[in-house]
Amino acid sequence: MELNARTSASESPASPAALMDRYTDVRGWTHRLAEPLSAEDMQVQSMPDASPAKWHLAHTAWFFERFILRDQLGHDAIDDRYEFIFNSYYNAVGPQHSRPKRGLLSRPSVAEIFEYRATVDARMHDVLSGSVSNSIAGLVEVGLNHEQQHQELLLTDIKHALGANPLKPAYLDDAAAFACPEDEQHNAGTWLSFEGGLIEIGHDATKPGFAYDCETPRHTQYVNGFEIFDRLATNAEFATFIDDGGYTRSDLWLDAGWSFVQQHQLDKPLYWNRKDDDATEFTLAGQQPLDPDLPVCHISLYEADAFARWKGCRLPTEAEWEHAAETVGAWGATMDDRVARPTLACRDGMRQAFGECWEWTGTQFRPYPGFTAQPGALGEYNSKFMSDQFVLRGGSMATPRTHLRTTYRNFFPASARWQFTGVRLCRDLA
Amino acid sequence: MELNARTSASESPASPAALMDRYTDVRGWTHRLAEPLSAEDMQVQSMPDASPAKWHLAHTAWFFERFILRDQLGHDAIDDRYEFIFNSYYNAVGPQHSRPKRGLLSRPSVAEIFEYRATVDARMHDVLSGSVSNSIAGLVEVGLNHEQQHQELLLTDIKHALGANPLKPAYLDDAAAFACPEDEQHNAGTWLSFEGGLIEIGHDATKPGFAYDCETPRHTQYVNGFEIFDRLATNAEFATFIDDGGYTRSDLWLDAGWSFVQQHQLDKPLYWNRKDDDATEFTLAGQQPLDPDLPVCHISLYEADAFARWKGCRLPTEAEWEHAAETVGAWGATMDDRVARPTLACRDGMRQAFGECWEWTGTQFRPYPGFTAQPGALGEYNSKFMSDQFVLRGGSMATPRTHLRTTYRNFFPASARWQFTGVRLCRDLA
Amino acid sequence: MELNARTSASESPASPAALMDRYTDVRGWTHRLAEPLSAEDMQVQSMPDASPAKWHLAHTAWFFERFILRDQLGHDAIDDRYEFIFNSYYNAVGPQHSRPKRGLLSRPSVAEIFEYRATVDARMHDVLSGSVSNSIAGLVEVGLNHEQQHQELLLTDIKHALGANPLKPAYLDDAAAFACPEDEQHNAGTWLSFEGGLIEIGHDATKPGFAYDCETPRHTQYVNGFEIFDRLATNAEFATFIDDGGYTRSDLWLDAGWSFVQQHQLDKPLYWNRKDDDATEFTLAGQQPLDPDLPVCHISLYEADAFARWKGCRLPTEAEWEHAAETVGAWGATMDDRVARPTLACRDGMRQAFGECWEWTGTQFRPYPGFTAQPGALGEYNSKFMSDQFVLRGGSMATPRTHLRTTYRNFFPASARWQFTGVRLCRDLA
Amino acid sequence: MELNARTSASESPASPAALMDRYTDVRGWTHRLAEPLSAEDMQVQSMPDASPAKWHLAHTAWFFERFILRDQLGHDAIDDRYEFIFNSYYNAVGPQHSRPKRGLLSRPSVAEIFEYRATVDARMHDVLSGSVSNSIAGLVEVGLNHEQQHQELLLTDIKHALGANPLKPAYLDDAAAFACPEDEQHNAGTWLSFEGGLIEIGHDATKPGFAYDCETPRHTQYVNGFEIFDRLATNAEFATFIDDGGYTRSDLWLDAGWSFVQQHQLDKPLYWNRKDDDATEFTLAGQQPLDPDLPVCHISLYEADAFARWKGCRLPTEAEWEHAAETVGAWGATMDDRVARPTLACRDGMRQAFGECWEWTGTQFRPYPGFTAQPGALGEYNSKFMSDQFVLRGGSMATPRTHLRTTYRNFFPASARWQFTGVRLCRDLA
Repeated sequence: MELNARTSASESPASPAALMDRYTDVRGWTHRLAEPLSAEDMQVQSMPDASPAKWHLAHTAWFFERFILRDQLGHDAIDDRYEFIFNSYYNAVGPQHSRPKRGLLSRPSVAEIFEYRATVDARMHDVLSGSVSNSIAGLVEVGLNHEQQHQELLLTDIKHALGANPLKPAYLDDAAAFACPEDEQHNAGTWLSFEGGLIEIGHDATKPGFAYDCETPRHTQYVNGFEIFDRLATNAEFATFIDDGGYTRSDLWLDAGWSFVQQHQLDKPLYWNRKDDDATEFTLAGQQPLDPDLPVCHISLYEADAFARWKGCRLPTEAEWEHAAETVGAWGATMDDRVARPTLACRDGMRQAFGECWEWTGTQFRPYPGFTAQPGALGEYNSKFMSDQFVLRGGSMATPRTHLRTTYRNFFPASARWQFTGVRLCRDLA
Repeated sequence: MELNARTSASESPASPAALMDRYTDVRGWTHRLAEPLSAEDMQVQSMPDASPAKWHLAHTAWFFERFILRDQLGHDAIDDRYEFIFNSYYNAVGPQHSRPKRGLLSRPSVAEIFEYRATVDARMHDVLSGSVSNSIAGLVEVGLNHEQQHQELLLTDIKHALGANPLKPAYLDDAAAFACPEDEQHNAGTWLSFEGGLIEIGHDATKPGFAYDCETPRHTQYVNGFEIFDRLATNAEFATFIDDGGYTRSDLWLDAGWSFVQQHQLDKPLYWNRKDDDATEFTLAGQQPLDPDLPVCHISLYEADAFARWKGCRLPTEAEWEHAAETVGAWGATMDDRVARPTLACRDGMRQAFGECWEWTGTQFRPYPGFTAQPGALGEYNSKFMSDQFVLRGGSMATPRTHLRTTYRNFFPASARWQFTGVRLCRDLA
Repeated sequence: MELNARTSASESPASPAALMDRYTDVRGWTHRLAEPLSAEDMQVQSMPDASPAKWHLAHTAWFFERFILRDQLGHDAIDDRYEFIFNSYYNAVGPQHSRPKRGLLSRPSVAEIFEYRATVDARMHDVLSGSVSNSIAGLVEVGLNHEQQHQELLLTDIKHALGANPLKPAYLDDAAAFACPEDEQHNAGTWLSFEGGLIEIGHDATKPGFAYDCETPRHTQYVNGFEIFDRLATNAEFATFIDDGGYTRSDLWLDAGWSFVQQHQLDKPLYWNRKDDDATEFTLAGQQPLDPDLPVCHISLYEADAFARWKGCRLPTEAEWEHAAETVGAWGATMDDRVARPTLACRDGMRQAFGECWEWTGTQFRPYPGFTAQPGALGEYNSKFMSDQFVLRGGSMATPRTHLRTTYRNFFPASARWQFTGVRLCRDLA
Repeated sequence: MELNARTSASESPASPAALMDRYTDVRGWTHRLAEPLSAEDMQVQSMPDASPAKWHLAHTAWFFERFILRDQLGHDAIDDRYEFIFNSYYNAVGPQHSRPKRGLLSRPSVAEIFEYRATVDARMHDVLSGSVSNSIAGLVEVGLNHEQQHQELLLTDIKHALGANPLKPAYLDDAAAFACPEDEQHNAGTWLSFEGGLIEIGHDATKPGFAYDCETPRHTQYVNGFEIFDRLATNAEFATFIDDGGYTRSDLWLDAGWSFVQQHQLDKPLYWNRKDDDATEFTLAGQQPLDPDLPVCHISLYEADAFARWKGCRLPTEAEWEHAAETVGAWGATMDDRVARPTLACRDGMRQAFGECWEWTGTQFRPYPGFTAQPGALGEYNSKFMSDQFVLRGGSMATPRTHLRTTYRNFFPASARWQFTGVRLCRDLA
């Protein structure tokens, strides 16, 4: 998943100083995330959909170089050989190194990539130290949001790489506990009701704030009344689904999902281990006991959908989710808190809506009414992914906190399990 | 594609005599369609998604036997061995012979299958000669609609099988010309405009007439104003797209579509041959000159979508299509007319909306708001296909005429090309 | 497996009348073999390595048309379209229809193929009625041996096709019992010893009789002393191997064989069914009780090799086999006897060496010292299969009796199981 | 390719001091080979058949730990987790980490693996400092030969990994030139003749010197007279083959080879680049001009065989090769000389027979007459690879010099191209 961005037309440019601060913060956070990793860790690509950590580091630098320093400011290439290997999928820019072979690029070394990042940062520092046009400021904002997406991907991909190692090494040795006061933790859960009628969803480009083009335009939809659960489904609930034969009852599954679980002989979420009474899950802090009260995570759309049917419910549409989520401002736990996995439901309202786990919706990713893709290489690509993906909402514990917002449309194929994905129940209002 | 059905709750049962007539007509039409085929033709399965003609003949008989004679009326099995091999995908009924291996079933022979059909028909004749309950009548209606779907599949599958033969044999030696008066044929085409606002689509179960469960409930949607073209895109238009580099410009394609055409090295619709000036297409009447004025047919969603982008347009949503199609009652050419391919646009209004080619919409097949699947084996299965398929509307030249209706939701994966699929352009109302 | 032939240089041509008789016999036998089959049966191709029965019928006729009537006698093509679809793999002749798609050729029909055969036969009758040159006579002999190979393939392929049908239909309803007198049947078995030294194997081209080019030249080999068992391994012996964990002990297997059985989850010969005490095997006479005394059949080289190791033995080399087989003239049961499966060991000496089951040797198929391939299309092709195949010796119950000979080199990949393949033990002379 | 070993029964144990020296030399050479590599380089696995350099480092240490320290001397495991991940394929020892996933093991780190090697070396130092039994001495010799095989594999695998990088980095920056005096270099080449008759090949276990079990027993073979070329085929000769349409003429190829080159669209050796007049090949010293006089390298058996046919010749059998090679004692260039690619033919006799390129023979790898595999885990495994591999002889420039010998049987599948493989012509003596 890699989205492009369009800043709101009416948005006032951030002050240069603020932009510089934000640039420094976001770029620095990438380095912070890479700290626990060795050169060997950063080399590994554990499946075609994942990328090596060092590639994420390089690609995000290339993004600033290509779309600002070179395209806008006419800089020479820092290294002519980097465009081919660090361009992800921008056909308009040129051909790319084969994605499943990113893990073969032992050169440039991690050290050279950090040097490359430093060179880009020095040049960007010069740019941001001067007068910054609106269009450059907008592109910087795009670049920073792009980098934040890759911060999340770096975490999902390195979790997958470490999880593929029989030694089950931990990424974080010093994971933090979640800070919800004990008397505000409660997992019982309840339904939140919403009346039907005309609603509006999507990003309003006349309002301040960043959004990707696929979140626009804000538009009207007619929805029926619905109820949505106030927390994510838990490991305990999902274990009950399993123990009730959930993975063996074809009537609960989408046809493609049934084929998927049969073909891969799936019977539990991606990182679970269940042997006798000793249930564990692999987390960014290594192998940990499976906590029944935490949100179930790393399930495919198929599993989320089957679980919901088993509960007599369904997945929310993205319109329902966004309408409900507009009522809450609370944010869940993210990597900003150095947590190693999704955390407990805290406080009231539509809890765990942001951070924690991406929430599968029942909506396939298609353009909003009136959508037009941004012109040029940067804009051509949201629409190109608009087939056979499902929309996910709300962000995960791996999403940087400032990257979360109500209108955000993440998307992955129905079979994706290595992202931090969970499920929230929904049902028609009786 | 195989849909299940639910008759409208309020529908008066057809009179037994009328039902008997309809049963006789529909079942007889299947035999008419099989007439041009040899035993060898009926044995062939040319790809996993297709079925041998003889299997279609047997499966449709099994459907009446299983869901009416046995489930409702307690008959003994006509042949115990048939359930395993002629059940398509009803897991609730039991396990099934592997779909891609249907072409290996040389026994029972074609003659034995016709005997099986005759036995079912004799028993059904007895049933329909007596008093018929509403529920039985409803199931008969389901079975007949089911058979009509397989009549279309028999044609698409046998076209694929014959088309895979280097000898390019014809299915029809006596194809008819289309009957549109010459002075009413005009291919120029024009845009039809529709205002935005709240509309209703879907089947109203309180009204008479048959519909599958996935067409219900009739419900409200909010749509923006739009324009839709009054005929299908033509071979001439699609040839211009090709000659303009349509298959080689990545910017026109969905990402999955681009991979699809690259992987299979596609550069034209499925049955086209273009060598120098001698362009032909394989039809049910064999290899024929490519007629520039006829609708382009046998294209995937990806090709339809790329073509529409190249035209500066987009595909209609299924709500837009249905809203527009409600304005027309005219029917296009179908196999009832013994035509061998889609035909010329005739008369006025939203022409070619029914028959001719299935029209790809930009909507992925998901449940309507408030949808609940029919209980039991017969109802469990629409919803199971509701992922990663696109909705097609309007029917094709292979669809029996009485099977066409405005609310019909057909669906296939974006890569499907062997169905009779075309494209109609749409755009936002300026 | 399809071999080409070279008649011995010194061979006197058969008398025209004798050749005509043999032509009529061999060609007629093909029709006899096809008698039990319906048009549907003859259409089926159950896997890429197999061919439809009707294709065998057509290809063998094409062989005479191409290499004699057209190449030697300048006839016009009987049907221009047939060369592309009925050429098997002769690149020197021209391009070919894709082998795995032979089952899609519903046209020409079975009836048309019989007409094609009749036309070829009529022309060949004219040819053989006149004066026949040595070179034509030699090519007729090649064509007849070629047809005999396809007679065997027709049987192996139709057994596979019928075996893939859950209804398990029989090919032969009137299979014969084997004619060995009861007092000459004995399964105990014994070792036959051979001294080491210089031996000669291969076909001597100065002697009369037909042989394929790969059987030449007769040449010297040095072998150590060895012992070879006087009958094939039985179902009972193989069942003991299985029950002793044969398929689960990696130490018994070639590495590639271990991967093969793991990947395909094999635990018994191809056509066996073992449920509780009710062991059966699918034969040309349908599902039959598994007879412990009959030779185990339909095993891969890997299974033959693992079985031999488990016995503390090994497979014979082809030189050892041929040297031993030269001592016997007795012929085992073949389809000439209308048997439906391999039969009991009868009489004395190296029993079951001909007919019954092809015997895997431990020799990979490579050219004999001094081998040169026959020039032209007909000769180019033995050598092209000389990699990664194992030699099989002796013929099977599906091999026509007059096609059996001591020097015959059959070859298949180590994983092949659908041929009638068994195992004979060998060991070093102590 | 990983062979096991058996020291000759009659071999006098090396003196402890000599064994210690050899241990130190061989183990040190591994470190020398790893010097040019970064941690990232050592992490990469560029295809399932290759292993990461760091895995080679660890596995070779594990070999000493497992088969000597633990099995023979009862040591505790140095790290319990290592057996699963550093066992290659010894089923008798226990289950193994999936081979194609070796590249995912970012932990243990390269540094930890060097520590592991140091621990093993310290323990082995203690062992070798004392009195060493014959059996331990024999196993040390096995372990050192095993390590030498992996030294070669480390080079072939890292060449493949670096060659897969679009940046084409060099492994050696300081490659040496080959030391053949200029007046002794001559590429013209000539045929060496050998009379036919009884010969002996294979390792004689009563003689001193190390050999793997598959090289035994020394045994008699009968060969016809033959001629063998006195040098390897050159790049210039192979370029002529290509320019003569070698890769497009099906008549030159084994059938499996023809499929192989079609499927992978091959038209030149693995590491060649030919654009206009600028022909280069990727070497351990990076991209270098293609030198017409050097041996062609990195070709499959199929290409070697097709080239030989095009020349009107054939590949030597392994018996012919060994018989001819016994006449020469000269050694070609190896990595001991720090050369980066095969070198010029030097001096006289059967030149380039050792070092330079492994030479494909026409013999498939099967047991010698009278072969029995060594008992136990160490011995079980030569025989398990004795199907569908071809024997290669003579060693390559990546083989340590002391690892070369006349009786050595290397083996790889016919499609292998990433080893240093070339071709020497042979033909029957007229």
